[in-house]
Amino acid sequence: MTAAGTGGTFDVIYALDLLGTAAFAASGALVGIRKRMDLLGVVVLGLVTATGGGVVRDLLMNDTPPFCFKNETYLYLALAVTIIVFLIPRKFERQRKTMLLLDALGLGTFLVIGTSKALAFKLGFMGSVIMGVMTATAGGMIRDMLGNEIPLILQREIYASACIAGGIVLYLLHRAGVAAAVTLPVAALVVIAIRIAAILRGWQLPKGPVI
Amino acid sequence: MTAAGTGGTFDVIYALDLLGTAAFAASGALVGIRKRMDLLGVVVLGLVTATGGGVVRDLLMNDTPPFCFKNETYLYLALAVTIIVFLIPRKFERQRKTMLLLDALGLGTFLVIGTSKALAFKLGFMGSVIMGVMTATAGGMIRDMLGNEIPLILQREIYASACIAGGIVLYLLHRAGVAAAVTLPVAALVVIAIRIAAILRGWQLPKGPVI
Amino acid sequence: MTAAGTGGTFDVIYALDLLGTAAFAASGALVGIRKRMDLLGVVVLGLVTATGGGVVRDLLMNDTPPFCFKNETYLYLALAVTIIVFLIPRKFERQRKTMLLLDALGLGTFLVIGTSKALAFKLGFMGSVIMGVMTATAGGMIRDMLGNEIPLILQREIYASACIAGGIVLYLLHRAGVAAAVTLPVAALVVIAIRIAAILRGWQLPKGPVI
Repeated sequence: MTAAGTGGTFDVIYALDLLGTAAFAASGALVGIRKRMDLLGVVVLGLVTATGGGVVRDLLMNDTPPFCFKNETYLYLALAVTIIVFLIPRKFERQRKTMLLLDALGLGTFLVIGTSKALAFKLGFMGSVIMGVMTATAGGMIRDMLGNEIPLILQREIYASACIAGGIVLYLLHRAGVAAAVTLPVAALVVIAIRIAAILRGWQLPKGPVI
Repeated sequence: MTAAGTGGTFDVIYALDLLGTAAFAASGALVGIRKRMDLLGVVVLGLVTATGGGVVRDLLMNDTPPFCFKNETYLYLALAVTIIVFLIPRKFERQRKTMLLLDALGLGTFLVIGTSKALAFKLGFMGSVIMGVMTATAGGMIRDMLGNEIPLILQREIYASACIAGGIVLYLLHRAGVAAAVTLPVAALVVIAIRIAAILRGWQLPKGPVI
Repeated sequence: MTAAGTGGTFDVIYALDLLGTAAFAASGALVGIRKRMDLLGVVVLGLVTATGGGVVRDLLMNDTPPFCFKNETYLYLALAVTIIVFLIPRKFERQRKTMLLLDALGLGTFLVIGTSKALAFKLGFMGSVIMGVMTATAGGMIRDMLGNEIPLILQREIYASACIAGGIVLYLLHRAGVAAAVTLPVAALVVIAIRIAAILRGWQLPKGPVI
């Protein structure tokens, strides 16, 4: 998923990738606990939320087995976080602001990883943006489907939309020939900034007329 | 997906394929609006409904990246239709008969594309029929799952069943050595005719006994 | 999926695989009938429950087309069982104990097939266990999602957990160099024994605190 060790930018991305994986695993585990699932269900929701987006992306790009089966660090990390959340969920619930911040970091990182992988696979504009958005959001959508809810991100909040903005920025900078060491952090910061501003200011997308 | 330009039949199929994509995108967008999703949710439902079936088929046949990432016309078209529906949904709601007709055209076209692709990949009888039916119906099933409903086509109406009939006809004609220029339109017409007759006459499949 | 005919163990596995396929198809069909789906919906639920786990596994390991499209016996068998259940569902409902036993047999067999395939593909510990568990449970999870329910196995009963235990046993025995003729039946028996004991004694996994 990331070529760790090939340079500073990539080491930072790998660290943020693991941080985002942990944050997503915690969010999945909390949904499972709230839905009164048992330990197994909570573990499944944690793992799926943390790795589902990247797995779907790798399936669509035929890079198999998906990233977390090549480097099981992602799976062990998500499993460990899930079990900790299962034992002391209230401590995580109380840290709502920290959780949202870590989630935003994960969102930006996953978007950047997905879109830059799509660019490396020579996908076009729509494909590159979609792969990034999917990497960042498909895990959460599967989490909500398993929990028998309409996925939250389809209904409200600027979440996937922040990813779309970051994906467009990354695609355009890449096309303009800007180096990855610049495009990746810039695009991630676009996602994170929009996401945090949206939370602080309560931004919403419009809905269609009632029909 | 289609070898446009290699002959009249294939040009017609490509045109019908785009028409079906537009019709399916509109049906997905309308579900999203009815479910009170925001613009992003409506776009996701439009894109998934329009391309989901073909994407699942290409994943199962390992023809990646899936068709709409090779030819992004499908994605741009679905996106444009979705946004138009988002802006003026009532105009589409009022054209219920036209929408059902376009949907039936899309159904027949997608069945033919999926089943003939499976035949080209040397799948057997069950595989060829299933790939066609999945191409035509999986997008709508994912749409309903994202909208937190039991997929409509599992409960009532002759919809996937019309595809099964068309897929069987296409498989048998193909085995009998009939040329694609004949088998494709015949199978598509079987699907469209059964689907329209079912709507007009209110045909239903039987349900099992209450248990 | 299985190399039938290469030896006694593999012939037995193939026979159990077909038995498990039939049991899973019946469980899917019964859910479809209970949900008041029509014949088509019941068939879809039967096929998906019987083959969905193996299809997801083969997609993740890029062994395409998935097993049931290479050997359509699985699809014909699941279709036949589904139609029989559709016609006489109460006879199957009344055989609850037999159904649970056959389901447990299928669970152990599918776990063993999935995990040993992952080992052949050189996946690691987490990957091997997950592939086995997914082979045994993903079909049932998709069944419940299509039926618009939170998957049963995420909420209660020792079901996937029995698979995890069997997968760990199989992985460790394999690493220790024990022959497949021993590891496969032992791991399957672990799954079946835990599953049956859990039913008889009402074992449950813990749930997290209410949050």
